[in-house]
Amino acid sequence: MSKDRIWTAALIVIGDEILSGRTQDKNIAQVASWLNVQGIRLAEVRVVADDMDHIAEAVNILRARNDYLFTTGGIGPTHDDITVDAIARALGVDVVIHPAARAILEKYYATRGGLNEGRLRMARVPAGAELIENHMSGAPGIQIENLYMMAGVPHITAGMLDALTGTLEGGAPLLSVTLGAWAPESEIAGVLREAEKAHESCVIGSYPFFRGGKVGANFVVRSTDPHELETCRAALKAGLEEAGYAVTDGGI
Amino acid sequence: MSKDRIWTAALIVIGDEILSGRTQDKNIAQVASWLNVQGIRLAEVRVVADDMDHIAEAVNILRARNDYLFTTGGIGPTHDDITVDAIARALGVDVVIHPAARAILEKYYATRGGLNEGRLRMARVPAGAELIENHMSGAPGIQIENLYMMAGVPHITAGMLDALTGTLEGGAPLLSVTLGAWAPESEIAGVLREAEKAHESCVIGSYPFFRGGKVGANFVVRSTDPHELETCRAALKAGLEEAGYAVTDGGI
Repeated sequence: MSKDRIWTAALIVIGDEILSGRTQDKNIAQVASWLNVQGIRLAEVRVVADDMDHIAEAVNILRARNDYLFTTGGIGPTHDDITVDAIARALGVDVVIHPAARAILEKYYATRGGLNEGRLRMARVPAGAELIENHMSGAPGIQIENLYMMAGVPHITAGMLDALTGTLEGGAPLLSVTLGAWAPESEIAGVLREAEKAHESCVIGSYPFFRGGKVGANFVVRSTDPHELETCRAALKAGLEEAGYAVTDGGI
Repeated sequence: MSKDRIWTAALIVIGDEILSGRTQDKNIAQVASWLNVQGIRLAEVRVVADDMDHIAEAVNILRARNDYLFTTGGIGPTHDDITVDAIARALGVDVVIHPAARAILEKYYATRGGLNEGRLRMARVPAGAELIENHMSGAPGIQIENLYMMAGVPHITAGMLDALTGTLEGGAPLLSVTLGAWAPESEIAGVLREAEKAHESCVIGSYPFFRGGKVGANFVVRSTDPHELETCRAALKAGLEEAGYAVTDGGI
């Protein structure tokens, strides 16, 4: 497979607690950063309620137009954990007890009060699924086709991502380099536009901030081509300096 | 309009910086919390790239199936700020300079180096749009039909939400009450399910945590009906106590 092919993933964050504002999501940023290292670009994220139809709709659209689809949330033991059921419905398969997941849970809960109906829910998978190792707590993640179902609790998600590291085919990793300047972005918009236009593989993001009464911005150049990334970085730096601003490598 | 009607909103978070993992989104939680107070439920969120087609597609789907659609990001002065263009395309209208927005920017930048091409971009709106006051920095937000375009920088977004407070029609606010217990959620899943089933207007969320070597969970009961919310809360508390757990009002 060519290194030039762009591999994409989508993420569905499942949970009323995010949509109610109760919980600040942390999985989007951590999944995005992890995907970059795998050479996979996060193309789209949806946050959906704990609702079978909403989850199934998002799953079927996003799995079709991306190489990979990740979900976080809704794979725990309680009644509002319906990700497995929704994905089984989206795929048109049954929900079954995965014997290895059951064995993991039996072992994990042996010293914690034993398996009960709620805990056994965490062994349910769409028929045909494999498990994703969870070395933080008992219940595993679930993989079927190009879908990866992970926990909602960020440190457990992190452990599952760790278990998946290096197992997904990707392309050239997206590289980035940051420059910072105490410049109002509205004064150097032309410099950014010209630098991006002259370097076809590069995308430049501009991230303004306001600190200690002064405005500035960080400029992130992204490309999968290390040579063009460097050329673009140098051109951008020169342009900013020509406009009268000192440039800080690595950002401010 | 009946108080029983459920008003919904969707949010589109626009920006490569969120999808690359560089920036941790803070707007989902703040928009969600603000909407709750207005009696409007955040039904769905999408995070999309700085890409005309992706933004326009999300806008047209979400504005049709919600009472309101909010966007954050992409209304600044640089080349990657394309929200206005994408929404104008989605609505099939031209992009025009809004005279009042131009006047605001002229005044704001009078002592900051004057209006230039980049800054004037922030006066561009889809034809027919109104402005949303920005008392934090110069450039206003933009409202057209049921769309509200806001800044990406969270404290500016907060100011725009503040300006909109009380101006959007909503229903009964979604009320919530929290109970906490040092219980593994897998042991009381049945209690939660029963309490929710017995109170039709209520939804119960279960949010486990792990602190100081002990597992616990907070249970959030949500309803627009204050009477049923209280009945459900009491039933849930009794059920948890019956299962042998001390319950902390307000959560742990």
